[in-house]
Amino acid sequence: MTQSLDPEELASYLRRFAADRNWEQFHTPKNLAMALAGEVGELVEVFQWLTPEQSATLDGEAKQNASDELADVAIYLIRLADVLGIDLGEAVSGKMAANERRYTVEASRDSAEKR
Amino acid sequence: MTQSLDPEELASYLRRFAADRNWEQFHTPKNLAMALAGEVGELVEVFQWLTPEQSATLDGEAKQNASDELADVAIYLIRLADVLGIDLGEAVSGKMAANERRYTVEASRDSAEKR
Amino acid sequence: MTQSLDPEELASYLRRFAADRNWEQFHTPKNLAMALAGEVGELVEVFQWLTPEQSATLDGEAKQNASDELADVAIYLIRLADVLGIDLGEAVSGKMAANERRYTVEASRDSAEKR
Amino acid sequence: MTQSLDPEELASYLRRFAADRNWEQFHTPKNLAMALAGEVGELVEVFQWLTPEQSATLDGEAKQNASDELADVAIYLIRLADVLGIDLGEAVSGKMAANERRYTVEASRDSAEKR
Repeated sequence: MTQSLDPEELASYLRRFAADRNWEQFHTPKNLAMALAGEVGELVEVFQWLTPEQSATLDGEAKQNASDELADVAIYLIRLADVLGIDLGEAVSGKMAANERRYTVEASRDSAEKR
Repeated sequence: MTQSLDPEELASYLRRFAADRNWEQFHTPKNLAMALAGEVGELVEVFQWLTPEQSATLDGEAKQNASDELADVAIYLIRLADVLGIDLGEAVSGKMAANERRYTVEASRDSAEKR
Repeated sequence: MTQSLDPEELASYLRRFAADRNWEQFHTPKNLAMALAGEVGELVEVFQWLTPEQSATLDGEAKQNASDELADVAIYLIRLADVLGIDLGEAVSGKMAANERRYTVEASRDSAEKR
Repeated sequence: MTQSLDPEELASYLRRFAADRNWEQFHTPKNLAMALAGEVGELVEVFQWLTPEQSATLDGEAKQNASDELADVAIYLIRLADVLGIDLGEAVSGKMAANERRYTVEASRDSAEKR
């Protein structure tokens, strides 16, 4: 499988990881959103000086860096959704349905224009 | 299930959504990392003026906004991982193993201090 | 002076700093916007686990970290504006005039509600 | 002048703008850092689907959008520095001195490699 991430299992694991360290006090949604922003900043830094072509052909070290930062983003995303009581599957389904209507193939083919 | 997101299915769906619109030209990892940063910025805006307590008790409209932005983050995260050929499940497992060693219960209980 | 930053002088200095290192090739607006996002991510990390009260009373080390990250943000902001040929003074004046109309004292007193 | 921004004057103006609306309650450094992240996210969105070349030759509407977002970033940067009691001029001087040592012309010519 190319995407073996199990969000349910990860949410549960992170709940326990935080509870064991008494970290719920730090895991307010406000703080978790900030942590997520911090990690996305680190992810962006992996690509900031690369050309689009270089970004598509990362070498070993850069690919590992990207992988680490993507993992950090996934971790905070899942933890934040769990703390807020939001089901990401439902949220994504609703969003993609709206995107199907908003970015029809006819209107959006070859165009990234925001609609 | 509290987290019904299926990353494998979403990656596949997004591949087709992009292909139908000839969007691969726009979906370089560099661009997708920027799109992810844009969406996390929108997520942060939901919480920026709230107290930590208010962030933990979102009302209907704010919760829907948070849900929409979390969905956008999930969408770009999964798309970017897929385009890079990175398996998020493996990436997260590696990260959590490192976190277990780095943030032991003894050292980290009640402390968010970066190690 | 509490704000002794001279944007004109800094823009000029950064132009020379980049030219000496033949960095114009890397300083496309797209890349500079990403670098700015990376630095704001680092700034956010200084505050992510702090309470609002703690954020207002930073100790020596945290205050120095915040200062370093604010400097990085200022540097990339000024460099990006300069490369784009945008005068920040004019841009800010226009924005504040719009903000005066959009957030009148009557409507906005004690309310952070977006208008 | 290409950079007519006056940070001292803007900090003073923003202090009054916030006081008139009783907004100090919302302007904790934690919140201002989040607002800055939100605005940088909006700035990144202006460039996310553009090629590096397109980003260097923005048309009228895109250039106005970039200008508006740069203004928002400048506003929150100056406001945050002021609330924290940090002089941006001093902070930037210290950073550039460190950058001169860290990125010497010999080592960094044609190389964006982080040192």
